[in-house]
Amino acid sequence: MRTVDPQQRETKRMALLDAASHCFAESGFVATRTADICAKAGMSAGNLFHYFASKHEVLLALVAREGEQIQQAMAPLAQAADPMAELLAFLDHICQLACDRHYAGLALEISALGHRDEAVARLVKANDRVLRDGLEALVRAADQAGQLHTVLSAPEAANWLATLIDGMFARVAADPDFHPDQQTEVLQSLVVHLLQGR
Amino acid sequence: MRTVDPQQRETKRMALLDAASHCFAESGFVATRTADICAKAGMSAGNLFHYFASKHEVLLALVAREGEQIQQAMAPLAQAADPMAELLAFLDHICQLACDRHYAGLALEISALGHRDEAVARLVKANDRVLRDGLEALVRAADQAGQLHTVLSAPEAANWLATLIDGMFARVAADPDFHPDQQTEVLQSLVVHLLQGR
Repeated sequence: MRTVDPQQRETKRMALLDAASHCFAESGFVATRTADICAKAGMSAGNLFHYFASKHEVLLALVAREGEQIQQAMAPLAQAADPMAELLAFLDHICQLACDRHYAGLALEISALGHRDEAVARLVKANDRVLRDGLEALVRAADQAGQLHTVLSAPEAANWLATLIDGMFARVAADPDFHPDQQTEVLQSLVVHLLQGR
Repeated sequence: MRTVDPQQRETKRMALLDAASHCFAESGFVATRTADICAKAGMSAGNLFHYFASKHEVLLALVAREGEQIQQAMAPLAQAADPMAELLAFLDHICQLACDRHYAGLALEISALGHRDEAVARLVKANDRVLRDGLEALVRAADQAGQLHTVLSAPEAANWLATLIDGMFARVAADPDFHPDQQTEVLQSLVVHLLQGR
């Protein structure tokens, strides 16, 4: 029996997810074949099935990983000394992500799939919850640091921040002339208005 | 030969489009059968083919009608004496539409279909253009009426208004606890901040 290094196995699994995210964003989930994913990852066709039972399982692992990444990125932010500055920096980071049309296209593809795939829909909803919980924690931390001046509750504020983020991704998809990285000042001004009433 | 009253023909065509919009929003485009659309419209199965060549043609007519409706709704607004008040009233109206989960679901279904159907994508893009042109005309009218105080150009302002609208529809889809009609004050406050700097 061949021994498998768990670390190496995880590295290959992640490489396949990276390759799949490229393929899904470029060709769509339905048109992508597992052989395309293997080719993109530089593996021989069929190799994928040592790591995932099906293309659908790759998709679910990809969406689940996205949720973990959001959680890992947001967890430390609310502990920072200046939560409002962390929030604005996080939104800057989101603007950069939204500029990556590969990433924005994949987000759209996944939310479209969620519309007719219960398992995807559940994960998408869970990821949205993770994002909003992270935003809410940041808003509460900013409030405790005396940085807020708003009538909005923390969940309402988190919802509006999510509205702005969703809206920017939707704009990128609808309009090739919309560049989120050129809009960070306006976004910051809106967020400051929402949370600090100026 | 049977004579066809063009008025009556148009009425039936519109009734079929209304029925189709219900069916697509509830069951999705793929799962909806033309017989379902006929049943919803109170017509016998197959009747649809006197008016549309295929289910796909129904979908295209539905998206095209949406564009015409946006254009008709927006055209008079920029001629009004108080364009800023018209803009805020229009956004109120959008909040009401977004509350209709049938309408919001259909919007999502159509943008998802646009991701893999070139003809739908073209129409969705054209509708987005119509919306932004309408918003831009309103912003210009408000500017000429001396109502604006902003560094944003009219196209930039229109883009941000579209971002807020898109974001609200995305929130409705993601979160059943988000009620746009309870958010009109916050939305108005954001728009006033964007356009009048307060």
